[in-house]
Amino acid sequence: MITSLQNPAIKQIVKLSKNRERREQQLFVLEGARELSLALQGGYTIAEVYLCREMFAQSKYPEVLECLSEEIITDISPAVFAKIAYRENSDGVVALAKPKSHTLQDLTLSEDPFLILLESVEKPGNLGAVLRTADAAAVDAVIICDPLTDLYNPNVIRSSVGGLFTVQTAVSSSQEVLQWLQQHQIHIYAAELQATECYHNIDFRKPSAIVMGTEADGLTRFWLENATQRIKIPMRGKIDSLNVSVSTAILTFEAMRQRGF
Amino acid sequence: MITSLQNPAIKQIVKLSKNRERREQQLFVLEGARELSLALQGGYTIAEVYLCREMFAQSKYPEVLECLSEEIITDISPAVFAKIAYRENSDGVVALAKPKSHTLQDLTLSEDPFLILLESVEKPGNLGAVLRTADAAAVDAVIICDPLTDLYNPNVIRSSVGGLFTVQTAVSSSQEVLQWLQQHQIHIYAAELQATECYHNIDFRKPSAIVMGTEADGLTRFWLENATQRIKIPMRGKIDSLNVSVSTAILTFEAMRQRGF
Repeated sequence: MITSLQNPAIKQIVKLSKNRERREQQLFVLEGARELSLALQGGYTIAEVYLCREMFAQSKYPEVLECLSEEIITDISPAVFAKIAYRENSDGVVALAKPKSHTLQDLTLSEDPFLILLESVEKPGNLGAVLRTADAAAVDAVIICDPLTDLYNPNVIRSSVGGLFTVQTAVSSSQEVLQWLQQHQIHIYAAELQATECYHNIDFRKPSAIVMGTEADGLTRFWLENATQRIKIPMRGKIDSLNVSVSTAILTFEAMRQRGF
Repeated sequence: MITSLQNPAIKQIVKLSKNRERREQQLFVLEGARELSLALQGGYTIAEVYLCREMFAQSKYPEVLECLSEEIITDISPAVFAKIAYRENSDGVVALAKPKSHTLQDLTLSEDPFLILLESVEKPGNLGAVLRTADAAAVDAVIICDPLTDLYNPNVIRSSVGGLFTVQTAVSSSQEVLQWLQQHQIHIYAAELQATECYHNIDFRKPSAIVMGTEADGLTRFWLENATQRIKIPMRGKIDSLNVSVSTAILTFEAMRQRGF
């Protein structure tokens, strides 16, 4: 059992909160038995598991251990767990997993796909929240264009509550994504505060992608000009802005309503 | 100009991050020229303003100073501002304002009201996010039953991006809120994961209130049993949960769609 905070393995885990370390080591950290279970179901390779059995005794997902080889499990003390955990109410499991590739070519689309595109998403919490919503709506995929955060940022994983592992995701340049959408004959709806068309007048039953910009600046001209149509969510208040995960959910669930779900 | 971090006024502001201090001093802290402008428009009394003119020169809302008496403005240095600021990209203004009373009797309702009720909301960030959405949808009011956080928590103010000042809010016990809703003949729709009725089959054009529980436990039996109807947002993913501010937005904007906005 590891009981020392100075243990090299523990120091390595702490380092993985940095994007550069994740890229170099080709590993990321996930926490919680449920997330671990979703990552296994999602086909992720788990390299190492650090387990505080005292805390894990309270876990609602004890069966996850049955899916893991004993060889990759290392016992740790509560103090060591506290050092590497980043969530409240955690259940004693931290795992190191291997990132997947996230190319457009890897995506499997349904016959009538619905996609969420995020341009230059900056805040990990917003990306995670969109992934959580995308799971609930069972969209085909979330595509991230020119991101300013990486998918395996601990805050993305935490705020997605596992959605990162259940939702197909691709990361690419806006140019490549546009070509790919056109090849697949998917209609592109760009969310814009100043658009004239209301989102609920759009026929989302056809193959569709919604494109969402940043909260501060909205979409770039690239997406506004290349969209099939620009759409707005009517704002009737004094603040004139919604959180990007909230806007995404409003558009996505309107599409699901039209599609009969 | 205040340049010392040890200045008693500065220490008082820092203390106001605690609920108890806010109650005792009957003051709360708000930050940013835009929030200050919205608070003034919302009829809040501003007791003191602390201004770092060097940073305020970059503000997008310089006109807010014209609405304030010079006597309540104290100049502070950038170092002092950094000590009392809690946001990134702030524009050099911190103000102390007086809380309002938030009773049901103070609410002014439209002819055909739409209300958001939150039961036992715990996370300030969620409450703030709901207030932001409530502003965008121009709902009649947000009512908070038996809250576990207070309205003037800095994280509520920050995440509402001013919605706290633009949206009518009331805080009361569930029992009193129920009686008040019944008196006003408002239909009550309780959000529940296990409900059989889909939210978009509800006629939200009538006077309506949606009631939202906590993410962890949902609504208590009190609201489930006293609701006109229980409604669900269909979940088709593996995680089976949405952020409460996201669920609230989906229901609220469906109501607005039905109402022709």
